[in-house]
Amino acid sequence: MTSTAPDDVTAATRTARSAAATPTAILAAATRAAHLAADPAQPIWITLLDPAEVDDAAARVDPDAPLAGTAVAVKDNLDLAGHPTTAGCPALADRPPAATSAAAVRRLTDAGAVAIGKTNLDQFATGLVGTRSPYGACHSVASAAHVSGGSSSGSALAVATGLVPLALGTDTAGSGRVPAAFNGIVGVKPTRGLVSTVGVLPACAGLDCVTTFTRTVAEARPALAALTWADPDDPWSRPVPTQPPPGVADRMRVVAVPDRPLDLDPVHETAWRAALRRLRTVAAHVVEVDVTAFLAAARLLYDGPWLAARWAAFGHLLEPDGPHLDPTVRTIVSRGRDIAGPDVFAGLDRLAALRRRTEGVWSDVDALLLPVTPGHPTLAEVAADPVGVNARLGRFTNFVNLLDLCAVAVPAGARTDGLPFGVQFVAPAFADAPLLDLAALWCGESVTTPADEPTGTTTVAVAGAHLTGLPLNPQLVELGGRLAYRARTAPGYRLYRLVGPGLPRPGLVRTGDGPAGGIAVEVWRLPHQAVGALLGTVPPPLGLGSVELDDGSRVTGFLAEEHGVRDAVDVTAAGGWRAALRPVDAGSP
Amino acid sequence: MTSTAPDDVTAATRTARSAAATPTAILAAATRAAHLAADPAQPIWITLLDPAEVDDAAARVDPDAPLAGTAVAVKDNLDLAGHPTTAGCPALADRPPAATSAAAVRRLTDAGAVAIGKTNLDQFATGLVGTRSPYGACHSVASAAHVSGGSSSGSALAVATGLVPLALGTDTAGSGRVPAAFNGIVGVKPTRGLVSTVGVLPACAGLDCVTTFTRTVAEARPALAALTWADPDDPWSRPVPTQPPPGVADRMRVVAVPDRPLDLDPVHETAWRAALRRLRTVAAHVVEVDVTAFLAAARLLYDGPWLAARWAAFGHLLEPDGPHLDPTVRTIVSRGRDIAGPDVFAGLDRLAALRRRTEGVWSDVDALLLPVTPGHPTLAEVAADPVGVNARLGRFTNFVNLLDLCAVAVPAGARTDGLPFGVQFVAPAFADAPLLDLAALWCGESVTTPADEPTGTTTVAVAGAHLTGLPLNPQLVELGGRLAYRARTAPGYRLYRLVGPGLPRPGLVRTGDGPAGGIAVEVWRLPHQAVGALLGTVPPPLGLGSVELDDGSRVTGFLAEEHGVRDAVDVTAAGGWRAALRPVDAGSP
Repeated sequence: MTSTAPDDVTAATRTARSAAATPTAILAAATRAAHLAADPAQPIWITLLDPAEVDDAAARVDPDAPLAGTAVAVKDNLDLAGHPTTAGCPALADRPPAATSAAAVRRLTDAGAVAIGKTNLDQFATGLVGTRSPYGACHSVASAAHVSGGSSSGSALAVATGLVPLALGTDTAGSGRVPAAFNGIVGVKPTRGLVSTVGVLPACAGLDCVTTFTRTVAEARPALAALTWADPDDPWSRPVPTQPPPGVADRMRVVAVPDRPLDLDPVHETAWRAALRRLRTVAAHVVEVDVTAFLAAARLLYDGPWLAARWAAFGHLLEPDGPHLDPTVRTIVSRGRDIAGPDVFAGLDRLAALRRRTEGVWSDVDALLLPVTPGHPTLAEVAADPVGVNARLGRFTNFVNLLDLCAVAVPAGARTDGLPFGVQFVAPAFADAPLLDLAALWCGESVTTPADEPTGTTTVAVAGAHLTGLPLNPQLVELGGRLAYRARTAPGYRLYRLVGPGLPRPGLVRTGDGPAGGIAVEVWRLPHQAVGALLGTVPPPLGLGSVELDDGSRVTGFLAEEHGVRDAVDVTAAGGWRAALRPVDAGSP
Repeated sequence: MTSTAPDDVTAATRTARSAAATPTAILAAATRAAHLAADPAQPIWITLLDPAEVDDAAARVDPDAPLAGTAVAVKDNLDLAGHPTTAGCPALADRPPAATSAAAVRRLTDAGAVAIGKTNLDQFATGLVGTRSPYGACHSVASAAHVSGGSSSGSALAVATGLVPLALGTDTAGSGRVPAAFNGIVGVKPTRGLVSTVGVLPACAGLDCVTTFTRTVAEARPALAALTWADPDDPWSRPVPTQPPPGVADRMRVVAVPDRPLDLDPVHETAWRAALRRLRTVAAHVVEVDVTAFLAAARLLYDGPWLAARWAAFGHLLEPDGPHLDPTVRTIVSRGRDIAGPDVFAGLDRLAALRRRTEGVWSDVDALLLPVTPGHPTLAEVAADPVGVNARLGRFTNFVNLLDLCAVAVPAGARTDGLPFGVQFVAPAFADAPLLDLAALWCGESVTTPADEPTGTTTVAVAGAHLTGLPLNPQLVELGGRLAYRARTAPGYRLYRLVGPGLPRPGLVRTGDGPAGGIAVEVWRLPHQAVGALLGTVPPPLGLGSVELDDGSRVTGFLAEEHGVRDAVDVTAAGGWRAALRPVDAGSP
């Protein structure tokens, strides 16, 4: 029932990875292994490069380049110079080969990687199953009966079977995460616009993201570093902001999970419960949040007007009908032709409203953990209900690009039936770097953010009006501060609302009888000299002292003198100042 | 031929403004004056409040509130509690009155202002002429034969005739700027999302902005301060970022103008030439830029798919036809019904591409000066060609919201025929505050940004890799720096490209024989202590010294030792490092 790479392939790739091998030897071995492994029952490749072409490219690689000797599989909706781009549609194989490679491919090859082939996909990147291809349906690396996931089916399998250490996919609805989950590997879906989409056959141009598949987070890092580039020729590309957006911390410690059960297949449900338990070994704090608005946004992608974007992008390729077209893809996307313009604007308004409803979540948490899919269907189940089964697969992935979030799919062990189980960490736009660190922690890999403070900086815990989004936060930013991490105090602290004119201000006091869960704080990293400037702005009874945090560490932080809170309102029960603000304000005149 | 407020009205408003008057007296006088001035030939008002209602509201005003006693006219597409919102459609007057005021109205009344009436407009805020209203066509305050401009016709006239010091308008395509220009007053079109649109009858929900009309910039400031608010109930609302976006300086000194003649009516052209001359007394540097992509974006608003947004917003109010509907508005907006969904997405892609093409302009300039319109048509000209004349009016205004920019329309004297002439300063999103200062300078008013450096800060001129968007700029941001202003050096400096490994770096040297126009620099404001940290990162032959700027002032700045540039490439001719980078890079191997 299970299918893995044949032994000779494994041997070839093992040789290829031996430390002494040159880029040329590694790539020659990888190409040979891929040709050897070619299997009509698992159609990973649409185009597998001739070994001579790979040799030529490998010979030109700078052996000191960061990705030197890395064999890459390229999803066949990205251009590779000299080869046609089919997007899973055989009729397009007759078009002239691409004159230049997609920008993402060029970024990788400039960094020393070499493409060895182009991979199968759900046609026009429209599907999450991996079966919607005239080049044949793929199946999971762990089961010939279960789908591979898609649309980046071949790219995920090329990595999962050990043929290549790195593959490029795309992800509009979940195409870079679902096949990662179904094949036990890492799928990185960067922030929209971080990686150029020039040379990608678009699905929804404004939402499409180029993604990576790797077996480890460590392998994804240099690839994402090479890929990240604000392409002046890509209208949807965006530069990485000079400073992280508000609320994005350098280190992620607070992870949200849904506050109610999800509708999962039973064997999936068991694996998800195990993941929730494992999360407590990775996150300092797990917080339950309402994910209703996220899931409502997910439904918009196919029930709302976005199918019209697919029709705009490649509808002209769906006529006339023929065996080169996947009938399900053609049926679904053709619905986009008849969507009315006013309904598109109504959908954009609806999405804006849902996005507003989800924004509050990111005030208090670093990332959201969700399963990648609600289940793992068989090929037979997909054949019986190709639209319905596929639609259900996107329930937890479809919202991510619509809401301008980034995500990483990571393996979460196996289900009781032996199939791989995958979860995803989701975070706000431009939180890619700390999100990779969180994913690495989950995978038991090392993180890159140094635990020690950089020279010349001090960390300061803030608990009140200096929190992100609150009125005094700009002081911290103007002093050159950045949000290092979210935390809670050690047990024994209480939080008071001070009496006095002006802004509502809190007082944090270690009374010894505070709650075990502590009080929510943000730890900001400031230049040494800025701490004096900050202290100068603080009126009594507030001052800076030493605050003990949830992990037993001590940082400088805002504290109130105990005598100064005698007349103050105890708001400890709220657990933090942000939560305390609303009800207390509502009760005041 | 010209029409002004009758003398008795002027007297009443003069009384209302006397320093000794209480808010109640001021508002009573303003209301009385507005009733006295009511003129069927100039239908400013759709609803003029009963003096008793105004008295009641005035009696509740806190006399110390920032806008205490300010009479406000409200465009009749914003809700005012207790009154119907017609949006210029008499059939809507029969609907129940609004239960609550629009958020923008509430922000003003919370700050002490009192609404005295609701003003006429091009129906459903669709038009730039002021004639598309069953309540009657307005004319310019300066000419009974010429249009008032719209769609915020009544609001602009209420201010221009002296009835109120402040009026609210809206601006999707130019409705807050065109009537300001045609009536000689100030129209502030803030950044999209800065002011809540909750309670506004939408035109294009994602583009609509609430605007102010005042006679001076000084009067607009407290109004905009009160209006600015990230409304949790408005999906399109956005918080003001903690720090200005990259490239937005605290003080605007470099202003762009089109690099080729615009297609203007002859009498408009003469006034525009005078405005260009006047600009040199306000801007330290005037730069010519290609505005082709801006004007192409402007054409998208009506030739592209955005009419479908109007149909989505109020198409249901256009059936059945009747005398309550303006025939031109109905004809135009009905075209939106038949726009196809895929064409909307294609339009969004096209807009993204145009936006990318315009972005480069903002690297080197603070604001763009344009006329508000290409001409000032008569009522007869509009009646003869209601669609064509209106479309031409939006040529210089339509792109502003599509490209996410802010703008201020300011008076620029009179044309030779005596009609007011208006120009607009346009700047990137969230540049509202420095843009108001630039507008104030233009109007001969005082600016609010203090000329002196804040205590504890130093200004540092950067000329190379520390410029906004270049690789070392994040150092300045992390040190707590912000862009104070753009400048050029005094004459006599030369710029070299240094020889050496790593990043291309420039050397600025006062050789004495540099060009009269100086070299482009950015002046950053840094905390005192940060200057040492910055100096520590600078390799020889670079150092920090004293740089003389275009205005004769001296600031600390990066300089190269003269002996260190002996082997360097002289790139002075480029005029600045950003301009020097591209050709020099292209010429290197």
